[in-house]
Amino acid sequence: MPEPTADIAMIGLAVMGQNLVLNMADHGFTVAAYNRHTDVVDKFMANGAKGRSIIGTHSIKELVATLKRPRRVMLLIKAGKPVDDVIEQLLPLLEKGDIIIDGGNSHYPDTTRRYEYLKKKGIYFVGSGVSGGEEGARYGPSLMPGGAIEAWPAIKPIFQAIAAKADGEPCCDWVGPAGAGHYVKMVHNGIEYGDMQLICESYDLMKRLAGLPDKEISEVMGKWNKGVLDSFLIEITRDILAFNDDDGIPMVEKIMDMAGQKGTGKWTAIDALDKGMPVTLIGEAVFARCLSALKEERTRASKVLTGPTIKQIPASERKQFIDDLEQALYASKIISYAQGFMLIREAAKEFKWDLNFPSIALMWRGGCIIRSVFLGEITKAYREDKDLENLLFHPFFQSAVEKAQSGWRKSVTEAVVNGIPTPAFSTALSFYDGYRSERLPANLLQAQRDYFGAHTFRILPQYANDKMKPGKNIHINWTGKGGDVSASTYDA
Amino acid sequence: MPEPTADIAMIGLAVMGQNLVLNMADHGFTVAAYNRHTDVVDKFMANGAKGRSIIGTHSIKELVATLKRPRRVMLLIKAGKPVDDVIEQLLPLLEKGDIIIDGGNSHYPDTTRRYEYLKKKGIYFVGSGVSGGEEGARYGPSLMPGGAIEAWPAIKPIFQAIAAKADGEPCCDWVGPAGAGHYVKMVHNGIEYGDMQLICESYDLMKRLAGLPDKEISEVMGKWNKGVLDSFLIEITRDILAFNDDDGIPMVEKIMDMAGQKGTGKWTAIDALDKGMPVTLIGEAVFARCLSALKEERTRASKVLTGPTIKQIPASERKQFIDDLEQALYASKIISYAQGFMLIREAAKEFKWDLNFPSIALMWRGGCIIRSVFLGEITKAYREDKDLENLLFHPFFQSAVEKAQSGWRKSVTEAVVNGIPTPAFSTALSFYDGYRSERLPANLLQAQRDYFGAHTFRILPQYANDKMKPGKNIHINWTGKGGDVSASTYDA
Repeated sequence: MPEPTADIAMIGLAVMGQNLVLNMADHGFTVAAYNRHTDVVDKFMANGAKGRSIIGTHSIKELVATLKRPRRVMLLIKAGKPVDDVIEQLLPLLEKGDIIIDGGNSHYPDTTRRYEYLKKKGIYFVGSGVSGGEEGARYGPSLMPGGAIEAWPAIKPIFQAIAAKADGEPCCDWVGPAGAGHYVKMVHNGIEYGDMQLICESYDLMKRLAGLPDKEISEVMGKWNKGVLDSFLIEITRDILAFNDDDGIPMVEKIMDMAGQKGTGKWTAIDALDKGMPVTLIGEAVFARCLSALKEERTRASKVLTGPTIKQIPASERKQFIDDLEQALYASKIISYAQGFMLIREAAKEFKWDLNFPSIALMWRGGCIIRSVFLGEITKAYREDKDLENLLFHPFFQSAVEKAQSGWRKSVTEAVVNGIPTPAFSTALSFYDGYRSERLPANLLQAQRDYFGAHTFRILPQYANDKMKPGKNIHINWTGKGGDVSASTYDA
Repeated sequence: MPEPTADIAMIGLAVMGQNLVLNMADHGFTVAAYNRHTDVVDKFMANGAKGRSIIGTHSIKELVATLKRPRRVMLLIKAGKPVDDVIEQLLPLLEKGDIIIDGGNSHYPDTTRRYEYLKKKGIYFVGSGVSGGEEGARYGPSLMPGGAIEAWPAIKPIFQAIAAKADGEPCCDWVGPAGAGHYVKMVHNGIEYGDMQLICESYDLMKRLAGLPDKEISEVMGKWNKGVLDSFLIEITRDILAFNDDDGIPMVEKIMDMAGQKGTGKWTAIDALDKGMPVTLIGEAVFARCLSALKEERTRASKVLTGPTIKQIPASERKQFIDDLEQALYASKIISYAQGFMLIREAAKEFKWDLNFPSIALMWRGGCIIRSVFLGEITKAYREDKDLENLLFHPFFQSAVEKAQSGWRKSVTEAVVNGIPTPAFSTALSFYDGYRSERLPANLLQAQRDYFGAHTFRILPQYANDKMKPGKNIHINWTGKGGDVSASTYDA
């Protein structure tokens, strides 16, 4: 056996795996690479990996044998059973203190389970969110590692070297225990769904309501990318809209309007429902993808369901319309991030994870798909007050929403009047108006529940008395007939 | 041992169980009753059950001994482990061909699991949705049984006798195999969440935007209850709003605006996300309850977050405003039911359940919380065309939405301009406008996904060529740099 020389091993050489390996090699690390279909290894070694500090291997055993200790093995493979299978294959080859890093799109409860399982075996397990797509993986992704903190000193030099840098800081820090890294990545992806939907709604309004050609929408995106919306997704949207096919037709207009999804946005929405947090914008963004997927049904519906005739924005009002839209997008985005952080805060509470909010925002600041100047402001807000209850309570975002509000309401109104769907803009606005409502109509809802199901309600403190005590579940016989058994006695 | 005389047994004597037992006794059935806390049995026998064909028992063994064969044992107990526990207690006492009916709020995957488990033991398991609250259970609930169809002849006489009747037909029919009964009940509850939220938004707009006192809102509800919105929930809302406390203040205004939930609406929203069906209105209704629950945070937010000054509807425009609102509520309701049936249709497809759509609508027509004249129209639509792709394709609902549209858009616009949250109205409208859009902006979203993650897209048929074939996954090198590995190769 030759002396082990590899700093880290990578299992899985699809697009992300290959690019991460190249990135690590660029930073002076020796990387052992393996892929289940070994022809992929050979092809990689003969092309991208050629002449670099990359060792191609054809079995997991061979892979592990190349590694210095503690062994660091990273997986970038399909989430689910394959991860468990590879872990089982690794176990007999590893020793206590070795490290397994799952960099795939694993669902956080699986990561928590694997963390607990491997802890018992003395193996340090890290679940790390990796974002940035091909480009990010190659030249600087956002990395969100969590799990066994004992592993952090051993992987920190590699991870922080290859990660994106924002304002001179690496977009990688320790997130928290167990599945926290994958949790934060999940919310990141949910927010990504939201950001993309918001941009799509802006594009749709400019196209259908203002009649702008893609080239001009691209110019608007270019302009927005120099202001508060400066972000990777706006930037690529600018480029996509300017990308014409050989025949001069914008490529984007040739693409089928059926959105795919890998499921992580869905996970976020489901998790929000489970935790009782109103993460409405991500929810609507996921549902918007679902609706888009029903292309044939929509096409049939378009023939029979009527709507208002679209009254196009006159050229003279176009600038104002676009400025309003920018504010609508900005305000909706603030709401979406506020909701996302509400969810993370709730998870931290539920799982008793000590999470570092400024670091989370910083990790998203660069490298990842949602990277933006805006996340710099969020980092700043959390650095000023790490216990900030809600982004909307910070003066910066408060005044941003205040300033944006009139344009936001105008954009939504135009969409509603003209029959153009803006589920994300609309839900963001409803959330904002609900969040700032001291009284919501849920009093009526509680009365209904008590009326038909004896589900009880609570009294507003100012109306409390001896019959109706504050903080107590109260049931009223609304009908004057029927029983007085309340649902809280519902058990057997 | 005395000769068994009981037609059916009930385990669980909370509010629903007691009322169902009394209902069965009213219809000439002899019912054996048992409750884990046996003092509840004694209290029941000494009060409501006194002098009726009800046999109180103090153990499950004693309960089963009273039953004629095939034994019919109904459970109305807390969902989850208690159901499994009671099933295990029953098993040694039952014989092949006996029937267990779970009438509780079980989640349908549990029902499917129990159905499969008991099938192996020769026991017929039925999971039945029961809706109607206290009153319904007592005088005629909606019953939605599914599972082992072999049990249906034995329980049909009892179930159809005690069920509500609508237009002369019992609101109970066989739903389908395995967990289908509880599935349909779950969607029923989701729709219930939606209906309640829509009524709450109407109330909120009348209160905050038109400045109507509860008494007048009650009158509006009374009027609506004579038209297309005629339904149990509108009826009880009328009564609730007219219900004053001893001091003359409407009771509803004293109730804390924090909504509770038992989780079935959440299940529906999660199931919709899982199945990729855009059931947005139920989603927003669940999230609205979550937001209402953050009462203290909202109170703090109300002090610092600004909104527009509400411009109250002048008295002269009030009638029009209320008429518009009625149309908004009606149209949103149509959307919500269309979404609910889309979900059921998808479940039928996924689980290979042969479901009877007219019967489902009929079961909801009476007895249950969402009972309404409107469900008669849905029953009719599905009777006319049992393969109806979507409610919105039926001429009745098409023209109803067409007629409602202008008022709907006006109501949402007023809410948006004045800063009153209408998440359910708004999402319904966005869905409608999205559903009738042949082209949605998901083409841009697919371009974004392909740009940053090589996730591929498909080409619109009219632009297909040799390079970009229809129905194929296409990846483009948008940047002119980076790899051409597409994400579909993402595996290891």
